[in-house]
Formats: sequence, C-alpha cells, structure tokens
Amino acid sequence: MRIITISREFGSGGRELGKRLAEALEIPYYDKEILYAIAKEGNFNEDYVEEVLQRGLTPNFMPTFGHTFSLGPNPVMENELEIMSLQQKIIENIAQKGDCVIVGRTSGIILEKFRPMKIFVYADMGARLARCRLRGDDVKNLSDKELQKKIQKIDEGRARHQRLFSDKKWGQKENYHLCVNTTGVEIAALVPAVKAYATAWFEQQEAD
Amino acid sequence: MRIITISREFGSGGRELGKRLAEALEIPYYDKEILYAIAKEGNFNEDYVEEVLQRGLTPNFMPTFGHTFSLGPNPVMENELEIMSLQQKIIENIAQKGDCVIVGRTSGIILEKFRPMKIFVYADMGARLARCRLRGDDVKNLSDKELQKKIQKIDEGRARHQRLFSDKKWGQKENYHLCVNTTGVEIAALVPAVKAYATAWFEQQEAD
Repeated sequence: MRIITISREFGSGGRELGKRLAEALEIPYYDKEILYAIAKEGNFNEDYVEEVLQRGLTPNFMPTFGHTFSLGPNPVMENELEIMSLQQKIIENIAQKGDCVIVGRTSGIILEKFRPMKIFVYADMGARLARCRLRGDDVKNLSDKELQKKIQKIDEGRARHQRLFSDKKWGQKENYHLCVNTTGVEIAALVPAVKAYATAWFEQQEAD
Repeated sequence: MRIITISREFGSGGRELGKRLAEALEIPYYDKEILYAIAKEGNFNEDYVEEVLQRGLTPNFMPTFGHTFSLGPNPVMENELEIMSLQQKIIENIAQKGDCVIVGRTSGIILEKFRPMKIFVYADMGARLARCRLRGDDVKNLSDKELQKKIQKIDEGRARHQRLFSDKKWGQKENYHLCVNTTGVEIAALVPAVKAYATAWFEQQEAD
C-alpha cells in the first residue's frame, strides 16, 4: 500500500505538488473530495465543514472541555465533533481502497497505521504571497500585509487542528519523511524527482 | 555554479548521502579535506582543529566577548578565531573552483553568496543509534544512553557553531531547500532521487 500524505503551508504550492505527484504516479488524489463527503454524509453545508476543518474546534470549548459537557448537550460542539469524526472515518475508508495521495486534513496523523509517506511543503513568505496572487486566490483586495496575516491565520488553524489529534507538531520536520521548500521553483519541475524519491522510499519500506 | 551544502544530524547518514550524491553528479566532494587544509595552513594539530570546529568557540569567551578582548591577547581564543577565519577562507576557495558537494562546516551559511542548494539530513534517534553502531564508530563501549548523549552533544556543538556565523538556526527547515529523513531507509537507494531533485532545482535557479 502506497499512501502519500501532504501537509503544506498555505500558498506553498503543496496542493499542486500533490495533484501532480498523484498524476505522475497514476494513483488517485484526494483533497476537497473529503470535505464534500463529510458535508454529504453529515448533511452539513460544505462551507461550514470547510470552516470548521480550517480552524479546528471552536476555541472556547477546548480549555473547558469537561466543563462544557457537564452543562449538557451543546449543538455547536456536537456538530464540530461529528465533522471531526466523519473526517477520520472517510479518510480511513479512502486509504483502505489503496494507493493514493491525500492533501491536508491531518491525514498523515489519521493514517499512521497505514505507514504513509509524509511530505511537508513550505516556502518563504514572499514566495507564498506571490503564489497566492498568481493563482488568483480571492485576495485581490488585500494588501500584502493583510494577505500575510490571512496566510498566517490559516496555518495557525492547521497547526491547532493537528493538536486535537496528536502531540506531533504540524510543520516540524521530524514528523515528516521529506520536507520540500518550493521558494523560487516551479512545482512541475520538481515532481519527477519527488516521484522518484517516493518510489525509492516505498521500495525500502517494502523491503523491510 | 552548482554548489550543494549538506548539514546533518550526527548519525543520520548525511556524510554518506553527500559522498554518494557527489559521485552521482560527478563533482568533487569536500568534508574532512577542509579540516586538514585548516590544520596545514594554520600549523595546527588536526585533532585540535576538529575539536574546535565541533564545539564552536570556547563557551566562556562568548558572553563576554568585548570584555575578554579588553584584558589583552588570549592565545586560546586567538587560535580558535584563526581556525574560524581559515575555515571561511578555505571553503570560499573551494566554492570558487566550481561545482561541488560540501558536508558540514557551516558551509551553507559561509557560501550564501554562491546561492548553494542546501540540504538537511536527519533521522529518528533510534535510527541514528543503529547507524552509529553499524558503521562501527568508536562507540562500542558506550551504552545506548551514553551514545545518545554523545550524539546530542555533537549536534548541540553544530548548532552553537552556526550561531557564531548566522541568525539562521541549524536544523530549522526554513533554512534549507530540502530536508531528508533517513529513518528506515538505505542512503544509497535515495541518491538517484536526490540527484534528480538537485538537478531540477539548479535548472530552475539558472532559468531565473
């Protein structure tokens, strides 16, 4: 089983890398599909699911977890926890189907028992600002400073989200098998080498 | 000019990776040669040079740098500073000769103006202990705990050494272009992919 999970800083091109890598390896690629499946199965609005997954549980609930429970049912938290639980289930179902590339969604943590190859993609802030502008994200009205704030906020959400599931810190190189800095390089040009790396890596794992 | 610098955790196989990568790229490889050149040019004992480069400047001098100077010449510090200065000069001379792979010696920092490709090689402690034992380092009489302490001490020395030259932290992924986790893999199996990655990376830089 060859499962590759990609975590990435916002604007680093990690999604593009994942998509192209899946194409090069001729295996399925999952990203937003997971979000849509959660929305469908849980009967939630897709935007709401995306928002919850991006920011993690509503911060207020976290420090007083037990306390909140003791006040009786809380529909907001119940929804959020259901989304987390569906995410877990859907990602595991995907992995069981076979080889794939999954971008984001804490999938590296959720799929640990499948021994995935974990890649982290990152870049300098300048490169990330430029990439966001280039791909025409919904950022035209933001100054560089505002866009940088938005990028940092999204990454903080990703780190926070991962803390719900694991002590392994998001973005800490020790928790990945390969960390790729995309500053100043075109993703497409790197893909054949990353494919070769992943292939060699899995061959080694299978030899063990 | 294609200069690749490799920083690495002790026991991660970074030196092996560097050597094999240089062979694969058919370019010169430098490591201990730098140390020998410093010893020769400065008329120092090789072991002494190695020790100074491994631990950085004598810690006592650092916090009171100006103060120590004001007490007049200090032969220990003068030697150490001469070693640092020779290291700088020799590494720059090497880079001026052309394409190469340089392992360690803060070369990624020293050679910044040559726009090197910087690789960091790391591994889990368990894998590093095993690699040290396997390559028969002078560690037979050490328990795992003692060997781990030794490994950590060497890495702390490397981090400290780098702090003398730069604010860029040793081992922090942002300061490298590619970070390679060698846990559970044979270095030789990864080399063709790392070569492909480096080749693609330099082609991108040259296109700019």
